[in-house]
Amino acid sequence: MEIGLIGLGKMGYNLALNLMDNEHNVVAFDVNNEAVKKISEEGAIGAESIAALVDKLAAPKIVWVMVPSGPITEQVIDELKGLLAEGDIVIEGGNSHYKDSIRREKELSEKGIHFFDVGTSGGMAGAREGACMMIGGNKEVFHTIEPVFRDINVENGYLYAGKSGSGHFLKMIHNGIEYGMMQAIAEGFEVLEKSDFDFDYEKVARVWNNGSVIRSWLMELTENAFSKDPKLDSIKGIMHSSGEGKWTVETALELQTAMPVTALSLMMRYRSLEEDTFTGKVVAALRNEFGGHAVESN
Amino acid sequence: MEIGLIGLGKMGYNLALNLMDNEHNVVAFDVNNEAVKKISEEGAIGAESIAALVDKLAAPKIVWVMVPSGPITEQVIDELKGLLAEGDIVIEGGNSHYKDSIRREKELSEKGIHFFDVGTSGGMAGAREGACMMIGGNKEVFHTIEPVFRDINVENGYLYAGKSGSGHFLKMIHNGIEYGMMQAIAEGFEVLEKSDFDFDYEKVARVWNNGSVIRSWLMELTENAFSKDPKLDSIKGIMHSSGEGKWTVETALELQTAMPVTALSLMMRYRSLEEDTFTGKVVAALRNEFGGHAVESN
Amino acid sequence: MEIGLIGLGKMGYNLALNLMDNEHNVVAFDVNNEAVKKISEEGAIGAESIAALVDKLAAPKIVWVMVPSGPITEQVIDELKGLLAEGDIVIEGGNSHYKDSIRREKELSEKGIHFFDVGTSGGMAGAREGACMMIGGNKEVFHTIEPVFRDINVENGYLYAGKSGSGHFLKMIHNGIEYGMMQAIAEGFEVLEKSDFDFDYEKVARVWNNGSVIRSWLMELTENAFSKDPKLDSIKGIMHSSGEGKWTVETALELQTAMPVTALSLMMRYRSLEEDTFTGKVVAALRNEFGGHAVESN
Amino acid sequence: MEIGLIGLGKMGYNLALNLMDNEHNVVAFDVNNEAVKKISEEGAIGAESIAALVDKLAAPKIVWVMVPSGPITEQVIDELKGLLAEGDIVIEGGNSHYKDSIRREKELSEKGIHFFDVGTSGGMAGAREGACMMIGGNKEVFHTIEPVFRDINVENGYLYAGKSGSGHFLKMIHNGIEYGMMQAIAEGFEVLEKSDFDFDYEKVARVWNNGSVIRSWLMELTENAFSKDPKLDSIKGIMHSSGEGKWTVETALELQTAMPVTALSLMMRYRSLEEDTFTGKVVAALRNEFGGHAVESN
Repeated sequence: MEIGLIGLGKMGYNLALNLMDNEHNVVAFDVNNEAVKKISEEGAIGAESIAALVDKLAAPKIVWVMVPSGPITEQVIDELKGLLAEGDIVIEGGNSHYKDSIRREKELSEKGIHFFDVGTSGGMAGAREGACMMIGGNKEVFHTIEPVFRDINVENGYLYAGKSGSGHFLKMIHNGIEYGMMQAIAEGFEVLEKSDFDFDYEKVARVWNNGSVIRSWLMELTENAFSKDPKLDSIKGIMHSSGEGKWTVETALELQTAMPVTALSLMMRYRSLEEDTFTGKVVAALRNEFGGHAVESN
Repeated sequence: MEIGLIGLGKMGYNLALNLMDNEHNVVAFDVNNEAVKKISEEGAIGAESIAALVDKLAAPKIVWVMVPSGPITEQVIDELKGLLAEGDIVIEGGNSHYKDSIRREKELSEKGIHFFDVGTSGGMAGAREGACMMIGGNKEVFHTIEPVFRDINVENGYLYAGKSGSGHFLKMIHNGIEYGMMQAIAEGFEVLEKSDFDFDYEKVARVWNNGSVIRSWLMELTENAFSKDPKLDSIKGIMHSSGEGKWTVETALELQTAMPVTALSLMMRYRSLEEDTFTGKVVAALRNEFGGHAVESN
Repeated sequence: MEIGLIGLGKMGYNLALNLMDNEHNVVAFDVNNEAVKKISEEGAIGAESIAALVDKLAAPKIVWVMVPSGPITEQVIDELKGLLAEGDIVIEGGNSHYKDSIRREKELSEKGIHFFDVGTSGGMAGAREGACMMIGGNKEVFHTIEPVFRDINVENGYLYAGKSGSGHFLKMIHNGIEYGMMQAIAEGFEVLEKSDFDFDYEKVARVWNNGSVIRSWLMELTENAFSKDPKLDSIKGIMHSSGEGKWTVETALELQTAMPVTALSLMMRYRSLEEDTFTGKVVAALRNEFGGHAVESN
Repeated sequence: MEIGLIGLGKMGYNLALNLMDNEHNVVAFDVNNEAVKKISEEGAIGAESIAALVDKLAAPKIVWVMVPSGPITEQVIDELKGLLAEGDIVIEGGNSHYKDSIRREKELSEKGIHFFDVGTSGGMAGAREGACMMIGGNKEVFHTIEPVFRDINVENGYLYAGKSGSGHFLKMIHNGIEYGMMQAIAEGFEVLEKSDFDFDYEKVARVWNNGSVIRSWLMELTENAFSKDPKLDSIKGIMHSSGEGKWTVETALELQTAMPVTALSLMMRYRSLEEDTFTGKVVAALRNEFGGHAVESN
């Protein structure tokens, strides 16, 4: 099929290559001219603007948006709304909040434009070689684009998840689970490190990846990480987060759902951003007040 | 090699078959005569007592103990201490606390008997077809029994973990991680269930197993479970636990380690054992006291 | 001073009595005519509508809004915006979200109307005999109404907290702390109940209220509750929540703040609303899948 | 009454003064001669050894032990066991584990010596002016020493809690609750600090102490602490712990009780002891592995 692709960052560029490997034609645009030039050399048709990209596509036009979530996605979708016509299709593959996707679908549908929210997991390697995609939107229309998803993902690596928003919802929850699994693995290694045994963490991760209950891709990545830096001496334990974990917990609150492990995984990330905490100061001060316990001074 | 095997329960019986598949000779004992008879028909040499089993082995004798952890393991090791001689080897493959294993190794070493603590993961299927084993004990002596572990486990599925106790310590932490991973996965599905989307959980688990960051054996088992019972309507959400999670948290406390996710995973299991809680009663009563908020009556 | 009071529910009615005890004149309105009639018999001037209430006040008019938070508060403020004039004052004493208060202050200030957000703690008894009030808004203007707050609260029981929104923000966080303190107290009694000692909880709460580090009004309420029902047999442990705890955790997420105890207090409330959980079903199913552990059937 | 007092540290010295204020005679010993000399000047009879102290008492002898918990308490009780006779009474007022107290009561009872485990809350000021004491041991014998507890504590500030061990059990749980309450309060102030309001924390604590639901002695101490150092700039947020919180969580695990708030309060203390964490390193490394997210280097 012919796909217009907007966004040639880490994910989009690899997606373009993946699409072309699978005999799809790609018309590509990015604000970065260099990226457009580079992907053109790989066989894509470059476009110098979103309007030009839309122009080059035959109807019904399919445009895949793969740009940073938030205002940039909003702006691109807005522009597409003006350029596309009834029967055209927008695939939004970024990390958008599912409520934004539901809203966008509604807005585009007023002009008869179809909108699919696609959550993508698997990192850059996944975008290149086959990822996992969760797709929300109109079921009938989905069948017309399904071959693309079948081609570019690993086997069984895509799912039509349901009505609009369900793709990004599923991706959000996927990331919430990911937070919990990562924290669980990491806590385990922290106890190993604090014990008086002398474990080789790379070997531990390897044996846990072979036959154990906790074997997983994350444990394979753990093995990789330790193979490069046996005690992770070179890196700081600062755990950033990119939004979906927070959204998951917010959704849990909305739905009055207890997600202690997910919430705590997120909060320990926040805790890691600080060297010292006001919470700690207050508790230390209180212990001093009632028990005369010494505080440590700044 | 020739292995004396004590204990023919779910794990031990499958281990016996596995050993024999790999051309090891098994002399087997269990308090259950039927099990002994059955494994004899599969090619093992049956023994009618621990003493008889020890008697049938050539020196240096190797005895693998695969009985329920706690008093039964204690009693079997005690008896073996009286029967074995310098240079003989005891392999303890149950779910023992690593501190018990350290103590047992010390006690047996007084008579020159070698003791290995072996944590096993992978369930019954693992015992039969190849599991993951973490082994603590004397490194030199380990090399003499290493071929057995190489044969019966999956590739890279065993690890000499270090000094006495390290095998069971590693297994304990493995289970702690398992608690956290399971709770993380389960919380994710609970939010899906509470949302107003209409997900097919088997398909969700399947897509998450193909190309996603959270692909794992536990997610495969999740897929299996949903394939049998799409909404798990037939089972109650009562989460029992068998000890290692508790030991992990206790170890964390001893080592002054924050393991919020592991601790909460355990505590949510405890919470699931109760229909109502005294905690809840107290909070409900307090809300009524200060705010006149209605309580629900029993 | 002369105060127009809108809302004669549990809190508003008691506030009216409190104001009049302290020699303030009250003009009162409520959608419930009975309440208006009743407070008139106590000495207030009844009004049959918000417009009538505003009409009866001398400029600069002071209107205290004490109605349920959410749409009703919104509607009342909207109506007041049309009726009041430059220099008039609105005091909003409900449990509103501080962001709504900031917005309302901005909207009213366009017409020169002053707006104060007042968080109130202390329950009905507090409204009647003296509560704790946290007030946000213009500092200069605050001084003109400060005497009212001095009169109706306990000593040191009011605080000008800062710019618009700070009053409701402080009340929100107060409630977040309240959730944590209540859960902490309740967890303690749950362990007492599970122990094999035979404690008299009323006496325990009493001794903890006399000389101990944890003496507090909440512990006094705990004593009261146990004095009426020694084991709380008559009530169910279902812990409802009215919003501020959720807002506190949402605020924590926005500010990237670790609030594990507050978050968990809230989530245990959500957990208490359910007899069984999907989380529990998934974990039970997984234990069955890998270990053959029995599940309990529905 | 006549009381032999062993231990003149912060708590014991103040207890001696308190006892003498209430017309009780004190025979005192401490390994620190200076403390003995000092208390003698206040009216106590000094003793140069435990044996000498016991010697100076008339039968039935009452000995109050107020020394650091752990080995020192063990040693003192051991020595007393040899020196005391049937009908004598040991009061153990330290922070001992309730299981040790149960064991000690059993050991002493073999010689007919009565043993009371007394948990004390209220800090140094409490020991001096009246604390809160929770007492476990024989009920009949308790009545003979009850007047002492009535005299030295605040009104309603002592409780005969039940059989041996119940006093220290109750004190342990009291401290568990204390951990949770302190963490709840501290988390609240952390959000205030992170908000873009500009609160005066001393004033906030003061208003919360007057009429609010969360008024409490801990909040009064919070007010005191902020009155000395408005932003706690001078102290580090390192939260040490002295054991009872850990014991409470361990007890919760034994009793299969969910105490999420208590457990997390403890674990956040452990977290505060570290500048960086291995958990954080592992999570940061994993994020880098799958998503190419930058790590921060050491």
